[in-house]
Formats: sequence, structure tokens, C-alpha cells
Amino acid sequence: MPIVRVEIAKGVASAEQKKAVIRRMTDVLVEELGRNPEYIFVVIDEVDTDNWGRKGQSLTELWQERQARTDGEA
Amino acid sequence: MPIVRVEIAKGVASAEQKKAVIRRMTDVLVEELGRNPEYIFVVIDEVDTDNWGRKGQSLTELWQERQARTDGEA
Amino acid sequence: MPIVRVEIAKGVASAEQKKAVIRRMTDVLVEELGRNPEYIFVVIDEVDTDNWGRKGQSLTELWQERQARTDGEA
Amino acid sequence: MPIVRVEIAKGVASAEQKKAVIRRMTDVLVEELGRNPEYIFVVIDEVDTDNWGRKGQSLTELWQERQARTDGEA
Amino acid sequence: MPIVRVEIAKGVASAEQKKAVIRRMTDVLVEELGRNPEYIFVVIDEVDTDNWGRKGQSLTELWQERQARTDGEA
Amino acid sequence: MPIVRVEIAKGVASAEQKKAVIRRMTDVLVEELGRNPEYIFVVIDEVDTDNWGRKGQSLTELWQERQARTDGEA
Repeated sequence: MPIVRVEIAKGVASAEQKKAVIRRMTDVLVEELGRNPEYIFVVIDEVDTDNWGRKGQSLTELWQERQARTDGEA
Repeated sequence: MPIVRVEIAKGVASAEQKKAVIRRMTDVLVEELGRNPEYIFVVIDEVDTDNWGRKGQSLTELWQERQARTDGEA
Repeated sequence: MPIVRVEIAKGVASAEQKKAVIRRMTDVLVEELGRNPEYIFVVIDEVDTDNWGRKGQSLTELWQERQARTDGEA
Repeated sequence: MPIVRVEIAKGVASAEQKKAVIRRMTDVLVEELGRNPEYIFVVIDEVDTDNWGRKGQSLTELWQERQARTDGEA
Repeated sequence: MPIVRVEIAKGVASAEQKKAVIRRMTDVLVEELGRNPEYIFVVIDEVDTDNWGRKGQSLTELWQERQARTDGEA
Repeated sequence: MPIVRVEIAKGVASAEQKKAVIRRMTDVLVEELGRNPEYIFVVIDEVDTDNWGRKGQSLTELWQERQARTDGEA
């Protein structure tokens, strides 16, 4: 009866993509561990980019900097 | 100082029902484990039915199928 | 298909007490929200008292201080 | 590659305050544990006060009572 | 920078199987969402069967009952 | 009443270091958000390096490869 929890940034996945993630994560646990899909839960948590940090900065900031670098190179 | 986290599908609980869940989950830990309610936290997380999967499908899909079967029987 | 996660300090619950917590937490969601128990999961996480802090101190420290106060009063 | 998850009540932190929390939590793990900030994640989860309970009551209720006591003293 | 958390019962996965789960869960997020694997974390949490409940009973109990039924049929 | 959860690899923090993490994570929430330390919880989860993956490999593998590269350079 596994539980899978997936945290992704808000906006990176469409409804169709989320369906694919749910289906394929379930398949992994069926195929690799022989678990019964009836009791496999997958929960997707979409996190606002203001609320997600890496190396001390929010994703909002990190993505703006990356965008600025890309624009500068153009 | 226990922490209880409850994940439910969005829309299945009213504000009054959530209050009842908080009160009764707290009571369980006081009565069964003798914990001090002053430091018992209960956090309810309401998950969008597009973001919750079971047996490889989203709750949105599972509930639509169930509804279709019920309608078909009518 | 709710998921309940209960974090308690290691050592505060016997196997019998954990069974009671699982049973009663499930009952709360059946009785208050009308959920189907077939798909209600309860996961108990027992946390080492060195790894749990409140007001900036570990539970190990907090419980030693409380014990010391009690002994001092004896 | 640590992950920090911070749950706070919705409304207690501005965007600037969340940036400061992300930056300083990251610093703690760099300075105390020597972790590489490149792989330190901080996720902030802002919980509705209806969905957060302590001592059997929602934060919404607890804060209304506290407000009422303060007003009564005025 | 997604985070995947997988909760399974203790004892259902070998070290090799856990490697396969980590590899394939990562692939799902790369292939379906275009995420950078450099920042995809997968954490596996192996839960004691006494600490995991479904329909109000611990996995330990549920698996003993299933075993007893299977033995009875032999 | 914030909750902080810190996931780190098993073995990277001594008991003293964990105390420091608990104390300083609490300070961040007191100083930046004005929260009451009485109700700030910090939970540290030490994850086995076999159970933690990044870019599709377990930490056990990643650290062995890094060690092999360092040895090769000696």
C-alpha cells in the first residue's frame, strides 16, 4: 500500500502531464515491487515558486536570474 | 507533542466537519497516549482531485467513472 | 481515500496503543466525513527524542529538565 | 542534500519574510552541518487557519478567543 | 527541482529494487515534465508494518489474516 | 505554531550538531516571523543513504563515485 508524494513547482505540469505522472509512478511500484495498484496512492503537491528555495534563494528569483542571463546572451 | 497530518480530497469536508476532525483526532491522542493537548497539532491538507491518484488514475477520473456507472444503472 | 500521518515521540506508545490509534483515527474519518475505510491509510512515525525540538531544545533536554524539577521538589 | 519543510499559518509572512526564512534556514545547514547550498531545498507551506488545530481547536477559533480576551481587557 | 517521497512497508524492497525505484521515478519526471535530473530528489521511507494501518487495522494484522485465509484454503 | 521538518542524510550530524540545528531553526522563525517559540516544533529525519536519491542514483552510489574520483586524483 505505498504512498507517493510528488512536489513540483506550480505551473510546470498541465492536467494531462499530471495524469501521466500518476499513471507512470504507479506502474513503477507495480513493476519493480509487485505492489497492488488498488492501494497505491500518488499525491501531487504544486508549490508556489515564492515558497520554494534552493541555495538560499526562491525559485522566483532563481528563474528570473536565469532568464536575465539568457536575455543578455541574445 | 504529537503532530497529526490529515490529507483529504478537496470538497469532502465543510468547515464544521474539519473542526470535528481536529477535535476528535486530538482526543484520540489524549485518551490513548496520555499526551498533553496544549502541544498536539493537527494539520488538514485538502488535495485537488486532479492531484490525487489511486491505481494509476486521478480521483477526478475515478469519480467520473463511478458516476457514469451509477447513471447507467438508473 | 484519506491519509493520516501521526508523529509521536519514540517510546510513548506500545504496540497495543498504536493499534488503538490506527483504529480510532480511521473511525473519525468514517464517522465525521463518511469516508470508505477500505482506502483510509494511517501511518505512525516514531521520532527519536534527540530529533524532536520545541522552543529551541530537543525533547531529550526538555524531558530531563522537567525530570530534574520534579526530583528537586521531592 | 537536505530538504527543509516549513509549515506556517497563512498570512503571517510577507514575500520578503519568506525570502529571509529561505536564506537563513539554508545558512543554518551550511554553517552547522557543512552541507553544499547547491542542493539545499527549502519548501514553505502556508496553511489556512481553518485547517490548523492546536489543543483540539482550529487556529481561527484560538485567535478569535485571544482577540476577544484582548478586547475585553481594553 | 522536484521532490518525490515514496512510503513503502519495511521489507518489501531489496537494495537493488530501491535503486530501480529511484532511477525510474526520476526518469518519469525527466520524460513527462522535462525536469533537470541534477535537482530531482527521491526519498524512500520504509515504514514498520506495526505503524501502517488500512481500514483501521495495522498491516501486521492485515497480512496475518490474509496468510491465515491462504493457509486455510490449502 | 510553525513546524519545521529537516531531512538530512544519516551520519552527517552529531547529537551536538542536531541541537544547534534545532536551536537556530527556531531562532529564524522567532526573529523573522515573530512566532512564539513555545509552539515551534522542529523534527529532524535522518535518511539512510540507500534511501535517498539524486539524479537517479542513491546517495550511497553518488558518494562512492565521488570518493573514487578523489582517490584517482591522489
